[in-house]
Amino acid sequence: MPASNPSALPAEARMLVTRVLACSAEVAEQVLRRGRLRRFPNRATILRQGDWLSLAFLLVLGRAHALLYSADGQVILLHEYRAGDLFGALGELEPVRQECDVLAVEEARALVLEAAELALLAQQHSCIGLALSRMLIRRLRQTTERMYERAALSAVGRVHAELLRQAREAADLTIRPAPILSELALRVATTRETASRAVNALERRGIIRRDADALIVVAPRRLEEMVF
Amino acid sequence: MPASNPSALPAEARMLVTRVLACSAEVAEQVLRRGRLRRFPNRATILRQGDWLSLAFLLVLGRAHALLYSADGQVILLHEYRAGDLFGALGELEPVRQECDVLAVEEARALVLEAAELALLAQQHSCIGLALSRMLIRRLRQTTERMYERAALSAVGRVHAELLRQAREAADLTIRPAPILSELALRVATTRETASRAVNALERRGIIRRDADALIVVAPRRLEEMVF
Repeated sequence: MPASNPSALPAEARMLVTRVLACSAEVAEQVLRRGRLRRFPNRATILRQGDWLSLAFLLVLGRAHALLYSADGQVILLHEYRAGDLFGALGELEPVRQECDVLAVEEARALVLEAAELALLAQQHSCIGLALSRMLIRRLRQTTERMYERAALSAVGRVHAELLRQAREAADLTIRPAPILSELALRVATTRETASRAVNALERRGIIRRDADALIVVAPRRLEEMVF
Repeated sequence: MPASNPSALPAEARMLVTRVLACSAEVAEQVLRRGRLRRFPNRATILRQGDWLSLAFLLVLGRAHALLYSADGQVILLHEYRAGDLFGALGELEPVRQECDVLAVEEARALVLEAAELALLAQQHSCIGLALSRMLIRRLRQTTERMYERAALSAVGRVHAELLRQAREAADLTIRPAPILSELALRVATTRETASRAVNALERRGIIRRDADALIVVAPRRLEEMVF
């Protein structure tokens, strides 16, 4: 069971809400007052597929994975949520069933509030609806990109694309800490073995370099040519 | 080239904008004044992958497909837009590249407006941001459902799931007009031949019935059991 921890991180939560909703400190304060902070240990289930939803979750700290399972036990990563991401019921007009499990993949903190309250706040403060729209547009783009890659690229090509994406998020083409192979495999919908073989092959060819705590893309152009 | 047709359907467009944005007639009027109606003939390209986007499109009439193409020429349907759907640039803060082609699949009309204008309107009228969020949540759910089905179901299972979905959208389990096989195949990412074989098998087993202009799901429970 997730622990209730109303006093955790109030200052960080306030800053995050202000930034995420692109709103004034006063609006952020209202959002915070209507919700409560909850703590989820690593591997805790935050939401379960099939639950009827009335709560919205704003991740304040940590990461969480939205996961589905196929009939043959394959795990499918739908989204990765990071600090600043909202999920759960987000102000839909009808009650909704949660479409997937959401698991904390690190120790996580979330601001939890009634979706109806969030919708009310969004009616009063247009910044909230706008911020929510922008977040959803980004998520939709990521999802369609992933859907495209699964249809259009080989498993090895998807590993290359994912490493390139992660490296480019950093200024110096360095993924720190180095990706965990099982997580890399989950992201690109392949097996750990395939991911491992692809990464080893890149290292042998001098396209990436690994040390104790980082993976550095040395030849991003060559890696880009290997995305197919 | 799409034809400019500012005088087309003003009354329908006004009603649609009012409904879609769940806003007052006055706000709808403002949105309409800031945009212009454009007509796209069937098969016209509304947006091209890679274009730099600054326009938002509200589909007023007809349908459009958001499509991507894999290296081996496979066509991937990302979204189907219907009357009331918004697409294009939707108020992002930075300029964005269009991620896919958007094609009219029927004669279509769209209200076209600058994304910056839309963002400004959303700042002034909270109903717009909320409506946009709800639309994006629905689209995200559809997209993740499709992604899940592609990973978890067989091609034949996806045909069954799609027929069930379309039939349940109608009150009487009747898909009217009957689905075009090539479009059904595109929706579930399979070949026309596979879709055709699956539909014929269902008809032989008495699970569906077809007449000149409709497909009726006679045994929805049995069809549901065949979604795997």
